[in-house]
Amino acid sequence: MDFFYNRPEDVVDETLRGLARIAPVTLSEPQHGIRLAVDAQWRGDRVAIISGGGAGHEPAHAGFVGQGMLAAAVAGELFTSPSVEAVLAAIRATCGPAGCLLIIKNYTGDRLNFGLAAERAVGEGYNVRSVIVADDVALPDADQQRGLAGTVLVHKIAGHYAAAGADLDTVAHMAERVCASLCSLGLALSSCTLPGHAVDRRDAELGLGIHNEPGVSEVDPHDADAAIQLVVEPLLAAFDARFDEGTSMIVLLNNLGGCATQEMGVLMNSLLAAIPAARIARVVTPAALMTSMDMHGFSVTLLPAEHDFVSALESPVDAIGWPGIRTPGAVTTFEPAVTDSAHDETGARDTTRESLLRAVIDMLVDARDELDALDARVGDGDTGTTFAAGARAVAAALDEGRLSSGEDARLAHEIGDILARDMGGSSGVLLSILCTATGAALAEDSRWAQALGHGIERMQHYGGAARGDRTLLDALIPAVEALATGADLHAAAKAARDGADATRSMTRARAGRSAYVPENVLRDLADPGAEAIARIWQRLAEA
Amino acid sequence: MDFFYNRPEDVVDETLRGLARIAPVTLSEPQHGIRLAVDAQWRGDRVAIISGGGAGHEPAHAGFVGQGMLAAAVAGELFTSPSVEAVLAAIRATCGPAGCLLIIKNYTGDRLNFGLAAERAVGEGYNVRSVIVADDVALPDADQQRGLAGTVLVHKIAGHYAAAGADLDTVAHMAERVCASLCSLGLALSSCTLPGHAVDRRDAELGLGIHNEPGVSEVDPHDADAAIQLVVEPLLAAFDARFDEGTSMIVLLNNLGGCATQEMGVLMNSLLAAIPAARIARVVTPAALMTSMDMHGFSVTLLPAEHDFVSALESPVDAIGWPGIRTPGAVTTFEPAVTDSAHDETGARDTTRESLLRAVIDMLVDARDELDALDARVGDGDTGTTFAAGARAVAAALDEGRLSSGEDARLAHEIGDILARDMGGSSGVLLSILCTATGAALAEDSRWAQALGHGIERMQHYGGAARGDRTLLDALIPAVEALATGADLHAAAKAARDGADATRSMTRARAGRSAYVPENVLRDLADPGAEAIARIWQRLAEA
Repeated sequence: MDFFYNRPEDVVDETLRGLARIAPVTLSEPQHGIRLAVDAQWRGDRVAIISGGGAGHEPAHAGFVGQGMLAAAVAGELFTSPSVEAVLAAIRATCGPAGCLLIIKNYTGDRLNFGLAAERAVGEGYNVRSVIVADDVALPDADQQRGLAGTVLVHKIAGHYAAAGADLDTVAHMAERVCASLCSLGLALSSCTLPGHAVDRRDAELGLGIHNEPGVSEVDPHDADAAIQLVVEPLLAAFDARFDEGTSMIVLLNNLGGCATQEMGVLMNSLLAAIPAARIARVVTPAALMTSMDMHGFSVTLLPAEHDFVSALESPVDAIGWPGIRTPGAVTTFEPAVTDSAHDETGARDTTRESLLRAVIDMLVDARDELDALDARVGDGDTGTTFAAGARAVAAALDEGRLSSGEDARLAHEIGDILARDMGGSSGVLLSILCTATGAALAEDSRWAQALGHGIERMQHYGGAARGDRTLLDALIPAVEALATGADLHAAAKAARDGADATRSMTRARAGRSAYVPENVLRDLADPGAEAIARIWQRLAEA
Repeated sequence: MDFFYNRPEDVVDETLRGLARIAPVTLSEPQHGIRLAVDAQWRGDRVAIISGGGAGHEPAHAGFVGQGMLAAAVAGELFTSPSVEAVLAAIRATCGPAGCLLIIKNYTGDRLNFGLAAERAVGEGYNVRSVIVADDVALPDADQQRGLAGTVLVHKIAGHYAAAGADLDTVAHMAERVCASLCSLGLALSSCTLPGHAVDRRDAELGLGIHNEPGVSEVDPHDADAAIQLVVEPLLAAFDARFDEGTSMIVLLNNLGGCATQEMGVLMNSLLAAIPAARIARVVTPAALMTSMDMHGFSVTLLPAEHDFVSALESPVDAIGWPGIRTPGAVTTFEPAVTDSAHDETGARDTTRESLLRAVIDMLVDARDELDALDARVGDGDTGTTFAAGARAVAAALDEGRLSSGEDARLAHEIGDILARDMGGSSGVLLSILCTATGAALAEDSRWAQALGHGIERMQHYGGAARGDRTLLDALIPAVEALATGADLHAAAKAARDGADATRSMTRARAGRSAYVPENVLRDLADPGAEAIARIWQRLAEA
């Protein structure tokens, strides 16, 4: 399956039904191929804005039904104009004494079917006006300009005036002004695929329609900036030919269906850079408004930022498909506060403490190969190397007199910084978290056992491992618990050793290096991290 | 070019810059690989909600920055956790006396880097809490559950409480409750493609991560319903195992990046049908919230519809990426009003008028082959057949006594209906518009010339052709203008003939059948539609 569809012939009804479950929309019962989505709150006391056309342009048009936009949308089959009867039924369903306005995209089928429906409705006594949207500037001949995503701006502006209680003349006049001012142009990297049809991509084209009509030219942009430039240049030329120099504009970036959100972000950035910033008064939040199935492309629409257009576009709306409009500004930046410890003075030093540290360091450097060999059997074979790297980095700081060995809290914190930077691997960060959190606790309360307990809790919180998961915690936790009950370092070291030895019988590692190693491999082997920790405690006790 | 990108290494900065142009977001100046998006309105007087992670999940996370959601987002490189320094800089930029909450997705890199940053920030005196989102239910082992789109609900709910002025304990507690309750599961038809890499699609998979991690199983759904079923069944099972039977839920349908809006509509409909309606309390409007580049897939997230979750999700928000939440209902329908003229009684009849009509009908039937031959040289060769078909249908109505031949307005209207139904082609609809609009005008004002003038105006409005475009208007307009100035039918017929003859020298057809025919082909040939109209007027004048 290439796409998320069920039966191709059900796509239109399914999308309408899904919409009707969550949007303020009521549907016509299926008969005679008529498919209407009507504003469920519609009271018939305002000008009814009606639009529609072939399906395949979701969220258009039913997604724009709701207070402040469309009173009704008429959906045809995929890429096929709805019937005269369907449009007529939409008029009958929503047109009250205030009349109705049909917003028709400039395709022959839509013009004729909506047109005949309008004239029949007039014959039935309805007050009907219509506007034809022809915003595409790709084709030089004005008679052939297609209706593209600019149509949605006509919906929104006409819908605003209708909701505000304007009469039909006013609403139609506003819609005509918008239609006369819109400029749109599209570019796609590939054509779209109709449900049930094989994927058959055409190459990149500029100036395409929204029904897989060929574009006016094949193009081959080498990047997003180039693609935007291909669209913006003729579009701005068309806009500037129509309006006073420097007229500011409302800019709409429409996803034709197949662009990822990330690509839309890149395109948006290119687009805003390609138009002089001073001329961009508003941006319709980039979104899929008028799609062409899964077409991998975009269109850009420009509309002069006349005051009444802007305020109509900014008014609230109850339609699910309208993405909102925003006032762009320059990118503002701030300077992030980056840690700069280069000039920190080292605190008090303590030679006893430093020799204790050196004893542990020497032991870890010596144990490197042995621990690596153990890890090679249950993990990736670098536990010894990793611990030795951390130890050497601490040794270098000692050599340079950069450790505040006489101040517990600062010392723990400084070792934490060194391990994060120089030890490497997840264990470097985890031990850094241990040291850093321990240091923070020591700054509040000088008792090591309590502080280490807090450090362990934090390490577990971020690391996700628990006691019994066959990690260094299985040696560390018993040692710290022993200390906390008042035991001396020898007792703590004994607890760490017992804990490390106990990992030999832990054959199901739930976290850490051995999480993916089969149980039988782990039998009778200690966890190398726990082994390293047990040796550290032992060395501390000896010294 | 397969995607809208510029240089792959610029994607993250470009999407952030595009966002910062239109969203209430300020960016950190680029240094040390730190990329922060901070709420431009942030005053530091509330709990700061901070999230982030590797880029490639747009609109997450920067798209959720704004009043009511995130105070800051930290972006790493594509699919790469941001550095400890970057997270720390975000805390320093936003965390005030009220403290901050880090929302971390359950990936090792994010846990460790956010974790260490949090502990360092604590060391600097900041009040920092963190929650880890692990909403994926694809993997049986709780320790390996990944953070998916449910993360965005944590942003929203925590953001609501923070904006409302709750203290850090309360905000963190709410976030923890949400994290403990979320269930998510994804399915994709293909894996995603990183910018600058060749497209290399894996097959459909269930239970995948958002970084192209393999899913837990390859699947082969045959349609959208089956795909939804593959996701909903284990997801509901996981949800029901955790909560009381029948617990109602908030449902989120997330586009993983590559689904067209139409597909999302189909999936939404399937999803809402796959979960008992009574259990769906709210729906987060289907949207791309947590994407994986262009991954062609979706994920579903369920959250118990607890009252405080719902009201927090419903509160307004200033973040560009939040799509809103809706209360679903049953699909409501109404019966469309369809034209049913079967039982209309025929109005007054007039034998003189009927014989006039029959004369025209006979002429058109006789002229069929001649007009077809003329059209074969300038169009698709069916003008005669089309006019004859319309004529025969009117004849049948006459035979059955179904035409109100004694009442001008009704007669025009009835002929309009017949032509729309039985004549076919664009000209059938256009002439139907002419007759229907003429009939409506006659109902107001009995003068034929004025009524026909209105009909012509409407036909032009919807058809788009003007006089001189080499269409039937070139015969019709002069005849009606002649009538309007008081001339008799003979003079009108003469005007129509002159008009039809004049089309011989019109070599540039701007509309209608010959719009795509080269000029030299059209030379000295009359437009067949204009010719037919001229013959109709001639026949009327003779009779």
